[in-house]
Amino acid sequence: MMIFKEYESEVQSYSRSFPVVFTQAKGSKLFDENGNEYLDFLAGAGSLNYGHNNPILKESLIEYIQNDGVAHGLDMHTEAKAGFLEAFRDIILKPRDLDHKVMFTGPTGANCVEAALKLARKVTGRHNIVSFTNGFHGCTLGALAATGNSHHRGGAGQPLSGVTRLPYDGYLGDNFNTLELFKKMLTDNSSGLDMPAAVILEIVQGEGGLNTASGKWLKELSMICKEHGILFIADDIQAGCGRTGTFFSFDQFDIKPDIITLSKSLSAFGLPFAVTLFDRKLDIWKPGEHNGTFRGNNHAFVTAKKALETYWADDKFASHIHARSEQLKLALNKICDNYPELYRKGRGLMQGICCPSGDIADDITSLCFKENLIIETSGPEGEVVKCFPPLTVSEEEMAHGLNILEQAFDQYFSAHMELKKAS
Amino acid sequence: MMIFKEYESEVQSYSRSFPVVFTQAKGSKLFDENGNEYLDFLAGAGSLNYGHNNPILKESLIEYIQNDGVAHGLDMHTEAKAGFLEAFRDIILKPRDLDHKVMFTGPTGANCVEAALKLARKVTGRHNIVSFTNGFHGCTLGALAATGNSHHRGGAGQPLSGVTRLPYDGYLGDNFNTLELFKKMLTDNSSGLDMPAAVILEIVQGEGGLNTASGKWLKELSMICKEHGILFIADDIQAGCGRTGTFFSFDQFDIKPDIITLSKSLSAFGLPFAVTLFDRKLDIWKPGEHNGTFRGNNHAFVTAKKALETYWADDKFASHIHARSEQLKLALNKICDNYPELYRKGRGLMQGICCPSGDIADDITSLCFKENLIIETSGPEGEVVKCFPPLTVSEEEMAHGLNILEQAFDQYFSAHMELKKAS
Amino acid sequence: MMIFKEYESEVQSYSRSFPVVFTQAKGSKLFDENGNEYLDFLAGAGSLNYGHNNPILKESLIEYIQNDGVAHGLDMHTEAKAGFLEAFRDIILKPRDLDHKVMFTGPTGANCVEAALKLARKVTGRHNIVSFTNGFHGCTLGALAATGNSHHRGGAGQPLSGVTRLPYDGYLGDNFNTLELFKKMLTDNSSGLDMPAAVILEIVQGEGGLNTASGKWLKELSMICKEHGILFIADDIQAGCGRTGTFFSFDQFDIKPDIITLSKSLSAFGLPFAVTLFDRKLDIWKPGEHNGTFRGNNHAFVTAKKALETYWADDKFASHIHARSEQLKLALNKICDNYPELYRKGRGLMQGICCPSGDIADDITSLCFKENLIIETSGPEGEVVKCFPPLTVSEEEMAHGLNILEQAFDQYFSAHMELKKAS
Amino acid sequence: MMIFKEYESEVQSYSRSFPVVFTQAKGSKLFDENGNEYLDFLAGAGSLNYGHNNPILKESLIEYIQNDGVAHGLDMHTEAKAGFLEAFRDIILKPRDLDHKVMFTGPTGANCVEAALKLARKVTGRHNIVSFTNGFHGCTLGALAATGNSHHRGGAGQPLSGVTRLPYDGYLGDNFNTLELFKKMLTDNSSGLDMPAAVILEIVQGEGGLNTASGKWLKELSMICKEHGILFIADDIQAGCGRTGTFFSFDQFDIKPDIITLSKSLSAFGLPFAVTLFDRKLDIWKPGEHNGTFRGNNHAFVTAKKALETYWADDKFASHIHARSEQLKLALNKICDNYPELYRKGRGLMQGICCPSGDIADDITSLCFKENLIIETSGPEGEVVKCFPPLTVSEEEMAHGLNILEQAFDQYFSAHMELKKAS
Repeated sequence: MMIFKEYESEVQSYSRSFPVVFTQAKGSKLFDENGNEYLDFLAGAGSLNYGHNNPILKESLIEYIQNDGVAHGLDMHTEAKAGFLEAFRDIILKPRDLDHKVMFTGPTGANCVEAALKLARKVTGRHNIVSFTNGFHGCTLGALAATGNSHHRGGAGQPLSGVTRLPYDGYLGDNFNTLELFKKMLTDNSSGLDMPAAVILEIVQGEGGLNTASGKWLKELSMICKEHGILFIADDIQAGCGRTGTFFSFDQFDIKPDIITLSKSLSAFGLPFAVTLFDRKLDIWKPGEHNGTFRGNNHAFVTAKKALETYWADDKFASHIHARSEQLKLALNKICDNYPELYRKGRGLMQGICCPSGDIADDITSLCFKENLIIETSGPEGEVVKCFPPLTVSEEEMAHGLNILEQAFDQYFSAHMELKKAS
Repeated sequence: MMIFKEYESEVQSYSRSFPVVFTQAKGSKLFDENGNEYLDFLAGAGSLNYGHNNPILKESLIEYIQNDGVAHGLDMHTEAKAGFLEAFRDIILKPRDLDHKVMFTGPTGANCVEAALKLARKVTGRHNIVSFTNGFHGCTLGALAATGNSHHRGGAGQPLSGVTRLPYDGYLGDNFNTLELFKKMLTDNSSGLDMPAAVILEIVQGEGGLNTASGKWLKELSMICKEHGILFIADDIQAGCGRTGTFFSFDQFDIKPDIITLSKSLSAFGLPFAVTLFDRKLDIWKPGEHNGTFRGNNHAFVTAKKALETYWADDKFASHIHARSEQLKLALNKICDNYPELYRKGRGLMQGICCPSGDIADDITSLCFKENLIIETSGPEGEVVKCFPPLTVSEEEMAHGLNILEQAFDQYFSAHMELKKAS
Repeated sequence: MMIFKEYESEVQSYSRSFPVVFTQAKGSKLFDENGNEYLDFLAGAGSLNYGHNNPILKESLIEYIQNDGVAHGLDMHTEAKAGFLEAFRDIILKPRDLDHKVMFTGPTGANCVEAALKLARKVTGRHNIVSFTNGFHGCTLGALAATGNSHHRGGAGQPLSGVTRLPYDGYLGDNFNTLELFKKMLTDNSSGLDMPAAVILEIVQGEGGLNTASGKWLKELSMICKEHGILFIADDIQAGCGRTGTFFSFDQFDIKPDIITLSKSLSAFGLPFAVTLFDRKLDIWKPGEHNGTFRGNNHAFVTAKKALETYWADDKFASHIHARSEQLKLALNKICDNYPELYRKGRGLMQGICCPSGDIADDITSLCFKENLIIETSGPEGEVVKCFPPLTVSEEEMAHGLNILEQAFDQYFSAHMELKKAS
Repeated sequence: MMIFKEYESEVQSYSRSFPVVFTQAKGSKLFDENGNEYLDFLAGAGSLNYGHNNPILKESLIEYIQNDGVAHGLDMHTEAKAGFLEAFRDIILKPRDLDHKVMFTGPTGANCVEAALKLARKVTGRHNIVSFTNGFHGCTLGALAATGNSHHRGGAGQPLSGVTRLPYDGYLGDNFNTLELFKKMLTDNSSGLDMPAAVILEIVQGEGGLNTASGKWLKELSMICKEHGILFIADDIQAGCGRTGTFFSFDQFDIKPDIITLSKSLSAFGLPFAVTLFDRKLDIWKPGEHNGTFRGNNHAFVTAKKALETYWADDKFASHIHARSEQLKLALNKICDNYPELYRKGRGLMQGICCPSGDIADDITSLCFKENLIIETSGPEGEVVKCFPPLTVSEEEMAHGLNILEQAFDQYFSAHMELKKAS
């Protein structure tokens, strides 16, 4: 542990919540250097949807490396890339009637967002981007301008520009349609809203506190965009790749985003990988205009392809996710029924419990970690306890983890009721 | 090939120069789907310094995966990360008397540059960054502002700000010390130069055309920075990890950069990985202030550690690089001696030949590719034919590649002399 | 007229609506080169509140010039400036219990706004400014960023930054308190609203379409600002100097702006003059830090002082404005009662009629000009016919002008009803 | 005096150097409230080229006001404006073969610069502007970005963007042609210089320390601009209107600026007035796109026209300026000959003496003020004592002022030699 204290920057974050040294991982489990086993309800913040070291993917990857498959090839054509593209075309794009092209960006979420914003600006000739309250889109300067979090924004060391912030669905309560403001400003010549190149939003806001946009709101937003020639960018980095129950988080809604960003679980094995998808009409990039050394992570191509073929060629995986999501929902509802201060948020396997404060949520996750459950918070104050198991989690693992969570709440509230009574 | 045409974005670049589909790679060789063998003098633009699928590293990686080592762990402590940090401390930092801390950023060069710029701005409370003509630092918005290339800058779709550009060493000829301008502006209250947070520069400019800064110029720049409280950022993404003959490209010079960025060959296996190193006095980051999902690529930790132990624990590898660099220098000089239009640039294993135009350089690399040599150009007009073999290249491979290159120049010039005579 | 066509830039605007050449002006009247007389309901867009060539002021000015009073003195102390400051202190500041200092900026509204924004940023160390939909604050780059009008914003030729736009009072209908959004964003750590240095707003929006903020809304805004250390900037350039019935447009409300901008009618004679007033605690300017050649227009000091003494030392002038405002209100209401498409907006002597479209409003002002009434439009579409007579207008002049206006509406609607019937 | 201390902002500057209260002014003289007479070698920083209350102009102005001439007319056509335009066309533009149109901007230098920069950006579709070291162009945000002075830049409270700074003529010594850097960067695809919309510069830098650009350098700059479609903006606010001996400061050189800004002495009476002139091909402004309340200062039209007719219709005034400039040059040379630490800078009636430090220059001007000579400093450190008498100064007044100046230097140096000897 000393080496981390002495040589790793103070920027460390998750390691502060889980101060052990991990060595191995398999499925929904992590193991530390002392042989302790942990149930993982964090799943790499959504990067390990298929579990740790998923055996099917692991076999493909080892075989590929054994066979001296190209590991790094800049953006040159490789067999592995072709394999990924074909699988993505056949299993993801075609069945959804999406005529999108695939851009391999630097292998991080921030990078595919930067590419999306650049492209939107280039295509429209407009500089302004609309993003939404509580949105999180990454920490490089362009993506950070679209990110709402003041902690991250403060890290920039300079003003962030080029983005107008509007209220997300439900931001001003259930009775106010927040799109009224956008519509009014778009049709008002002196509203001060520079006509945007694009809107960028998460269909479910992961870091922002598991806020969900309704199908109706999304459809209306989509129509507003069409009317004004504004591009619709769905940032599906955290909510995509099955996290909400379908491959894209918007599959169930009647919208077709012009641009889609994917990363996190796209490689399916936790390997760095990101793509920006866009309607082929928008493909005005000049050769190499946006580039990056690691835009062709062939190891990731291999595992990503295998995951698509294994999990998304039929409906079985989606059914499994649905079942686990219902299990999760019931359990969270049960907890919330016991404590009126709490309420459930999110959908699919990105649900959680909103606590009255970030301090309470921290206490809960600390109690869980004592019981070897790895679980984190999100939201503006870190007030939402966020359940993010691998999608491959079993019914028993899920039950076990939720049991720990329930007991943590019980323990917290009984302790604090004691305190209240005592005082 | 059709899948690339139909589904991959027009942003493709290297694949246009080398329009084949690669399948396997080993050492200095790449193989395509038709069994053709290519000698690789590109080496992932400096990301494959230890060759493709280096067997020592490959063995470690496979063993790690076989054993279900943690693949993705956000920024949690892992055995693999500890191993990397210890090796980096013992083999790289301590012997150089560098008291730097390590920040694991998103695993791309652009990302570690963004972190460096943010930190410099935060530490100094100043917003301005000085970068240099022909510098290349990445394509995300913050890094792009520091990048000189107009093709990439044009991709932003919005003005780039926060950076003042100054002339690099030698930019105005050998007789003019370009630091005169910087010194004058820093001490002139109405020069219009906002006091910079930092300077950022490459010690050898990879994309900018293999321009080299002299030790004297670097030392003077370093002293100017100290005098004014300006941080010195060495961007060693392309020139570092041994490319110029020493681990850092500045090891031979009397400077100690406040901040250093590393990526490309840091993983040693072509895996995405990047770090920002900085004097521990600068470590004012708040937890998670700059973050990223893939900031802990454990596969890369494993191969990076192994490479440090194998290649940098003693001087043998450096001697090997030195010998190959001399071999390269002699061969390039020979070519240039034959054709006075040409001159050699660069140092170590990042040397090349400057042609009178980008078109000529393109013709040369095309002729080489016909002879199964993969080699690319750099420079403002793509006028520099850039020799970037793996550092592990053998004497024979080097001789073979240089032979192809020499013949390409001969073929080009004899064809064009014919043309001249004919006309 | 040829000289204007041939030598004056196409940027001309008012001269397009009133294509005659004016020669003389007196009180509420303008005269053209052919001896035609016009009633002026535009009053220099609020710069001629005391009428053209007001005889009392004119006498002072001529006497001052005759006597070789200093005309231009940069920001040196002059007897004329002292006179203005003493009158401003005694007649304006002290009776209102305002402990503000006076900064003489370049003599334009845009300039005093730029000074206000700079000071707010300097004092708070924050860069963000909140301005409101439909606000107009000037056309220099800093002021323009706060201005909502897309026509003017488009003139910048570059993105405008540093300003967040929020909805003005009533922007989303009478039932929605637009401050809910501001309050929510201020207390939400990931709203994306960078903590503002200041809010800037007009109490009545002149160019934005005569929208008025209620006392309740202003008081709440003022309290929000206090709570978060945000400065409150009242831009009283158009609505100030008596236009709404009191010297400042906010005199009747329970707020005390930290910073106030004044220009337009401040000189009282149509001479360029502007000041930025601010709470003396904010006076952290360094000598000459914001400057300008014409920051001391001594001719304007003379007429401004005389106007304060003549019109604001007692309540008579305010009573006169009140009477004329009531006369205006009644007449506009009468017109609107006849045509349900119309409604009245604004208060004091900055009232007008909102038409269904800008085209209709243009037709009305054209019809008025045929009857020698000079009157203009405002609002996002130019849809508001805006009555802006000098505050010194007589009851008869007012009645005459309003009679022309009423007949214009009658003529317009009778013509269009004919058309409707015919079709 | 108390009123200034108590009620005027700390931003005061000139009044700190000359702490008296002025009452009257005539020709080259200022008078204070105690009847003291001062010789004015500051002339409103170049705003009073024709002297204070010039009797010819004064008569026109009083007559105009007496006759109820329009004082304020927004941008409506007036007889006074027509008169100015005709005189400007006939006396200034036509004889110089300048086919420029006139844009009346807000009546300050900063405002006409803002208009110039906006227009250049609009016309070219480029956002970048090149300005030069030590340039001064005003304090509103757009103009300030082009201004070099760090004291003023620091007042912005936010980063300034959109401008690249290059070295002015002679900035790196006599032997280095600073345009080499500009030329190299323009033709280098990865120089990092975004192709500029325009260059903006002063032909003689007033605030920057009386630096002069040579005809050769200007011609070369002009040709570079033409080659790349970059507009050439001559900021003639301080150096224009005869200050250097000709109406425009560039009249003697073989250049024709695309855009010219004029203000300060344009009204000829110290009244606020500014215009932006531009080649009529550039006149793409939409109506009112850049506006401002005081863009039609009719009093200034009257005096400006009279001054053009009186002083510029023939060569007499230019000859007078030339004679006074030679007188000034001889006297300054004489002083500098006595003290080798000093050297003369500037040309025409904007010459001065460069001292070894700002402190020395301040001591000199203080000594002068004790002898009732008003004179100021300029330059990055305030190290240049700047002689700026009205152009109408008589030979005797000039001699008198220069005598005071010479004695001040003598007094300073004899006192400091004493000190040196003593120590």
